Amino acid sequence: MPKYRLLTPGPVAVPERVREAMARTLLHHRAPEFLPVLEEVFSGLKQVFQTDRDVLLLASSGSGAMEAAVANVFSAGDRVVVVRGGKFGERWAELCEAYGVEAVCVDVEWGQAVDPAAVRAALDATPDARAVLVQASETSTGVLHPIRELAELVHEKPGRLIVVDGISGVGVHDLPMDAWGLDVVVSGSQKSWMLPPGLAFIALSEAAEQAVGESTGPRYYLDLRKELVSQRKNSTTFTPAVSLIVGLREALRLLLAEGIQNVFARHEAMAHIVRSGAEALGLELYAPTSPAFSCTSIHVPDGLDGKALVKRMRDVYGMTIADGQGKASGKMFRIGHMGDVDGFDMLSAIAGLEMVLADLGYPVKLGEGTRAATERLREMLSAGDR
Amino acid sequence: MPKYRLLTPGPVAVPERVREAMARTLLHHRAPEFLPVLEEVFSGLKQVFQTDRDVLLLASSGSGAMEAAVANVFSAGDRVVVVRGGKFGERWAELCEAYGVEAVCVDVEWGQAVDPAAVRAALDATPDARAVLVQASETSTGVLHPIRELAELVHEKPGRLIVVDGISGVGVHDLPMDAWGLDVVVSGSQKSWMLPPGLAFIALSEAAEQAVGESTGPRYYLDLRKELVSQRKNSTTFTPAVSLIVGLREALRLLLAEGIQNVFARHEAMAHIVRSGAEALGLELYAPTSPAFSCTSIHVPDGLDGKALVKRMRDVYGMTIADGQGKASGKMFRIGHMGDVDGFDMLSAIAGLEMVLADLGYPVKLGEGTRAATERLREMLSAGDR
Repeated sequence: MPKYRLLTPGPVAVPERVREAMARTLLHHRAPEFLPVLEEVFSGLKQVFQTDRDVLLLASSGSGAMEAAVANVFSAGDRVVVVRGGKFGERWAELCEAYGVEAVCVDVEWGQAVDPAAVRAALDATPDARAVLVQASETSTGVLHPIRELAELVHEKPGRLIVVDGISGVGVHDLPMDAWGLDVVVSGSQKSWMLPPGLAFIALSEAAEQAVGESTGPRYYLDLRKELVSQRKNSTTFTPAVSLIVGLREALRLLLAEGIQNVFARHEAMAHIVRSGAEALGLELYAPTSPAFSCTSIHVPDGLDGKALVKRMRDVYGMTIADGQGKASGKMFRIGHMGDVDGFDMLSAIAGLEMVLADLGYPVKLGEGTRAATERLREMLSAGDR
Repeated sequence: MPKYRLLTPGPVAVPERVREAMARTLLHHRAPEFLPVLEEVFSGLKQVFQTDRDVLLLASSGSGAMEAAVANVFSAGDRVVVVRGGKFGERWAELCEAYGVEAVCVDVEWGQAVDPAAVRAALDATPDARAVLVQASETSTGVLHPIRELAELVHEKPGRLIVVDGISGVGVHDLPMDAWGLDVVVSGSQKSWMLPPGLAFIALSEAAEQAVGESTGPRYYLDLRKELVSQRKNSTTFTPAVSLIVGLREALRLLLAEGIQNVFARHEAMAHIVRSGAEALGLELYAPTSPAFSCTSIHVPDGLDGKALVKRMRDVYGMTIADGQGKASGKMFRIGHMGDVDGFDMLSAIAGLEMVLADLGYPVKLGEGTRAATERLREMLSAGDR
């Protein structure tokens, strides 16, 4: 009976205006009508990435952009430091392995942010490390890593690069690429960009672009050398994901009209509503000390079946939330804050969660979570207006 | 910051599938492709009206269909009994006046259902009354009138007709036209039909159709004699509202897949959630004894400004609810239950209401309304599954 509510940390609910734009008659990607679309999209992406560098489009998932980073910036035999505190940290290491890049991993307990001192130690022990690869928001654990501190640390030695997986970070957190000196930043459409999956973004600092030219790694579809040339001519090497790009134009218009600082604040507000509701229900946050605003990760209470919880949220209450990934599967669940969701959707998520917990026999006081969420939501919506 | 939520008793939120259907390339209304659309729509309308009679389409608002009823069934000088317990009861009387039909009005206190005994008295005092005109759901007050009892009473005298404004009644309440012997039933697209406004429906019993042939009233655009001929040939007299009809096909598919008894139960469930939340907040229902399931009408608490309440719901919390109409304006407000809304939307409405009441200084215990709504919602969604 309830409506379908997509509340995972990606894919996310797509705003109606964006869906309408994508449903229009398809433009040919070489038609003159498409040129202003690309132009506007390139300009808008730079504003959200907070960079004067070019942001390249790839018709791929976010992982394609991660692969593009590894394949284009490094060469076999290079050594890098990888922050590994979740499934996507593991992905950096796996990509390095696939390209013959030696990854020195800084393993971080899931749910915790990396301690910059541990990265410093790894860099000290690896004097030839060319870069540090890290997630801004580690989607699998709901953790925000200290990107600014890591960037400063990396740049203590000239020529070292910081490569940031900003897939669920850019457009969610304030991660100014140029101001913080981030060398590679990637993102993916199905997150803060409020689009379906299928479009990825990558931006390179001057130093990273130079590395792209020097890399000997094999690459074709994800060859950024070609894309740098094509996209600077307002084109793409391969057929681009036209309808997604048309949708992106619309989504960027929405984001820029909202104002990117307000966009960051919105994600933070969604996270606070869910956290206050979860805490009022006596639940334990999975990432209590450095939570990302992309999603809130919550421990499954002892004795409950996490998969049953997620399934019941979907089957009975219409809400698609995310199970934990990898070793956290069944033990943790995640509620997303990105895309076309608002505070009342977050309140509904807490209400659904209360009901599921009660259904599963957890001693929840029905109404305590929604009360806390309602209080928080009210503060946010009407604080400046009373 | 919150999303736009349309929670009035019409227009209502339109489901995505319906909006998508309406956004498709327009069909010409005489093109062969449109014939199966009309056919399917006529068949679906009959199922929701619960009639074997034809349900005619009019490109008009619901009031157009009300006018068609008066203009086609009666003639100047006829006498009818009108149940007048709200703005739409008044509209029946006004339409009669416009067509020279003498309306004997049974005035009912707003918020109350008509007492069948009062209608009996009016009919006894008006032996030549040709019909009783009434609302099923009086949208302006949120009241359900006792249609079945009134129909029995009307038909105690052969030839007398019962004319039912089912604009916010059909598809909301179980009002089986044939089984209850309703002679004229009208409805409008922007209610349970989950469409934008602009399309109206009217169905006539055999007796009513005979009256249409005998009426001497002036009519052209709303001439049902022509429409009966055209639409029985799977066409329309005038250019129909093509995109709305295409949308209607999609909406009917949704409604029939849900099952019309389930559709009625859904509206009832939405109403119960809002009522339980409002009562938990200590609010007074405007229609406590015979509430319609189209909307819940609630008294503005003493000392509060009802227009400010409705405005703040919209401006601060993103929810468009309805002020009272006519003499109830500013003193009552209405939360709609029709269209693409679900229990979590109703919960959100209660949360928004709590917040507005608190903002306006009403001594509300934040969280009591959402607790009650959550409890009710949980009962509904998971009762059969625990």
